[in-house]
Amino acid sequence: MPNALDPDAPLGVFDSGLGGLTVARAMLVTLPAERIVYLGDTARVPYGTRSAQTVIRYARTCSRVLIDRGVKALVIACNTVSAVALELLRAELDLPIVGVVQPGARAAVAAAEAMAALNGAHERLPKIGVLGTLGTINSGAYPRAVAQLSTRLEVVAEPAPLLVPLVEEGWLEGQVPELAVERYVTPLIRAGAGVIVLGCTHYPLLRNVIERVAARVAGRDVPVVDSAEATAREVLELQQSGRLPPAVHATPADRRLELLVTDLPNSFSSAAERFLGADAPEASQIDLKVI
Amino acid sequence: MPNALDPDAPLGVFDSGLGGLTVARAMLVTLPAERIVYLGDTARVPYGTRSAQTVIRYARTCSRVLIDRGVKALVIACNTVSAVALELLRAELDLPIVGVVQPGARAAVAAAEAMAALNGAHERLPKIGVLGTLGTINSGAYPRAVAQLSTRLEVVAEPAPLLVPLVEEGWLEGQVPELAVERYVTPLIRAGAGVIVLGCTHYPLLRNVIERVAARVAGRDVPVVDSAEATAREVLELQQSGRLPPAVHATPADRRLELLVTDLPNSFSSAAERFLGADAPEASQIDLKVI
Repeated sequence: MPNALDPDAPLGVFDSGLGGLTVARAMLVTLPAERIVYLGDTARVPYGTRSAQTVIRYARTCSRVLIDRGVKALVIACNTVSAVALELLRAELDLPIVGVVQPGARAAVAAAEAMAALNGAHERLPKIGVLGTLGTINSGAYPRAVAQLSTRLEVVAEPAPLLVPLVEEGWLEGQVPELAVERYVTPLIRAGAGVIVLGCTHYPLLRNVIERVAARVAGRDVPVVDSAEATAREVLELQQSGRLPPAVHATPADRRLELLVTDLPNSFSSAAERFLGADAPEASQIDLKVI
Repeated sequence: MPNALDPDAPLGVFDSGLGGLTVARAMLVTLPAERIVYLGDTARVPYGTRSAQTVIRYARTCSRVLIDRGVKALVIACNTVSAVALELLRAELDLPIVGVVQPGARAAVAAAEAMAALNGAHERLPKIGVLGTLGTINSGAYPRAVAQLSTRLEVVAEPAPLLVPLVEEGWLEGQVPELAVERYVTPLIRAGAGVIVLGCTHYPLLRNVIERVAARVAGRDVPVVDSAEATAREVLELQQSGRLPPAVHATPADRRLELLVTDLPNSFSSAAERFLGADAPEASQIDLKVI
């Protein structure tokens, strides 16, 4: 049973693995009174290479785990799930659900419009370049989300399948991530992208590389936006509009984030420090057999 | 129920994904009368980054699918499963089971001894260098398997986590695979490896790169061995020793291999051509919900 009426219930956040911690981190900052239960489906990561049908099945089990823990809302901190399963989960489940694609598209549109205003009317509008997993790009979710926000902005998209494994392995600097990023970013820039949206919650850890490569290929700075902060703000807006009750009783800072994983927690806990810093709590394993 | 007494029952082969097709291909050549049912657990690939506990759980479901299809023996065409679950599956299941670690270790020992014989008694014995997934390397399965075959040969091992994603993406040539391989092969060569065993069934598709990099780092040719052919020969030896009945009635060549996957078959079928050539059969999806 969803616990949507208890304002002190936690917010549930899930992702295939580590990447969604960038969203959880932004939520801890933007929503300082809220508790968060984060679920990383590490026994089945990655999602981005799988079919929509399988991603939907996995998303249902993750949602169920968090709802059984009494969360008052769900944040889908995974672009692939947001791209292929958000509408379905909203239809099936009786609590507020926020995805990352719409906030990411909003951030990208804002950046492109700011750029256009800066460049003046004589320059062509910058296109929005999307990097994402195969599942996210194939779904067409970003072009759809941008089209709802602007009729003038075009989207070009490029699947970047090697970036998730690079981030999961912590291989974030040096020639290999540089060359991999170059392979994915170059066609975006050549197709006219003037803004790049990181359409996968893993990619912010490669932001420095992506910014450097994009600037080199384009010959000028290319704004890079991600959905983490925009998603946290969307949860805040849900609260401000009365659709989600804010927490009444503050939780001590060191108990505001609970981490759950579906595989053994050891390597997740150490990797979580890359995302959250040394304050990252220990992760606990939940048993997939019972879900 | 296993169907161990029907000589015309197929051989069951499973892997986390595509890699085991290198073993299936070798079996089609070495066992020309046998039928093969191959299962790639594409909805849960990769296994190599997961805990032993999760790999065991996944291996049990794969074994069950194939046994329910009446196979007369199981070939575990995945080093990670062979390294962490082979003994357990042998204890639990009532049919002959062949893994890839012992055949791979045998091929490596034979290559190292051939090299030592060639070099003469005055040179130090070459060490055996193992590339594998984190799960395989952490299990210590290769050092144990080599120790059972030779008391003189030492093993050095290196986890190579990015190579599976590179092969799954078909990124097999160029600077990125070259640099990734260099990062993993260099410490092996520096530690004295004179032979390299490909401790993952995905890696034969990167064999050219691995051979080239190893020769450059070592300053001389380094034999590279894989377990595919040695595993097929181990199945043949099971038949020759009377522990597994050979097929009585030959199956037409174009119906000898059946491919099953747990995620949608589209991308698997096209990738299977990289392993099997244009004759690769279409893959069919089985529903994980019912297993």
